[in-house]
Amino acid sequence: MTTDDAVPKQDRSRATRQRLLETAVRCLATHGWEISTVGFIAAEAGISRGAVQHHYRTREALILAALEHMFEERTTLLDALPDPAGSGPERVHAVVTGLVEAMGGELFRAALQVWTVAAADPELRAAVVPLERHFAREVHRRAVRLLRVDDSDPATRGLIQATLDLARGLALADVLTDDSRRRARVVRAWSTQLAAALSASEEPVGS
Amino acid sequence: MTTDDAVPKQDRSRATRQRLLETAVRCLATHGWEISTVGFIAAEAGISRGAVQHHYRTREALILAALEHMFEERTTLLDALPDPAGSGPERVHAVVTGLVEAMGGELFRAALQVWTVAAADPELRAAVVPLERHFAREVHRRAVRLLRVDDSDPATRGLIQATLDLARGLALADVLTDDSRRRARVVRAWSTQLAAALSASEEPVGS
Repeated sequence: MTTDDAVPKQDRSRATRQRLLETAVRCLATHGWEISTVGFIAAEAGISRGAVQHHYRTREALILAALEHMFEERTTLLDALPDPAGSGPERVHAVVTGLVEAMGGELFRAALQVWTVAAADPELRAAVVPLERHFAREVHRRAVRLLRVDDSDPATRGLIQATLDLARGLALADVLTDDSRRRARVVRAWSTQLAAALSASEEPVGS
Repeated sequence: MTTDDAVPKQDRSRATRQRLLETAVRCLATHGWEISTVGFIAAEAGISRGAVQHHYRTREALILAALEHMFEERTTLLDALPDPAGSGPERVHAVVTGLVEAMGGELFRAALQVWTVAAADPELRAAVVPLERHFAREVHRRAVRLLRVDDSDPATRGLIQATLDLARGLALADVLTDDSRRRARVVRAWSTQLAAALSASEEPVGS
């Protein structure tokens, strides 16, 4: 058995940071922006305010780190999506379902709190926008890989982006009520069209 | 020329309310939730705090009235969309473009502030959800009419809903940066698919 003293200081520090960011995400998603102050998040994480400020000097620094953490969690979710077996419409449907689920939920609700405040706060917005750009590219890349498409074709690229915009819209529709039944029907309608479009644009290899 | 005194009291009261709600929408969209207190909105509208409280006793009452006002403005925008000439993909593209524009912009940014706070506030959420349900039905009805489709067909209904979810996702993507160029490409990609799907599901009248 190791005691806390036996764990190198650096690892403990990393574990504290991890716990803090996870708590920040949960606080934002559950209690919203106004309540999620540094003091509240610290108390919820069981970490002293001083220790929090050792890692993140300001509330903005903590919130931005939490937003990066959300992005990393989301790309981890996307990377963990099983590669659906088969081909054709059912495979496309499975991929779109996975994308939509990975884009929604608690991570979306937490990010929504940050986006909404950033929408009316130019300073926070300036810090958030480059993170969002980077994240959008990472998600797009994963969607292309999962759908096994060539997005150098502008029409295909537009459809992939539309699918991710749809996922964002569905995530927003789920914030106030449980929208899962309606969402399943919408995803079915969408993925049927997407599959038809992607199979129509497919060229045999070497043609 | 009429003076203020010549305007019936009821009309003045209605005009005051109208100005107040327009100001509330603009304040929410521009300055966000935290800054948009009753006092701030009253000052921006040039109306005394007492007069505001005569119309809306609490901040929640004012915010909910502002949300209804956003909905009315949005349905008015949708009703004012010109009926695009022609038929086929270009007509569908014009309708989708109109829907997406009407669902975004300042009205969306103001509503986003209310939704985001309601997401973490059960009391506000309980008041917002019935308004949202009513509004979603009204928008859906207008989309069906503009697209001239029969949404008793579940596949068609799913495609209309997907289009409106996409519009919501695009509106959210436009909150932090000007996303209009990318949005135009996404709308083009989706409307092409939607037009193909709708024309495939069309049956000759009387068949």
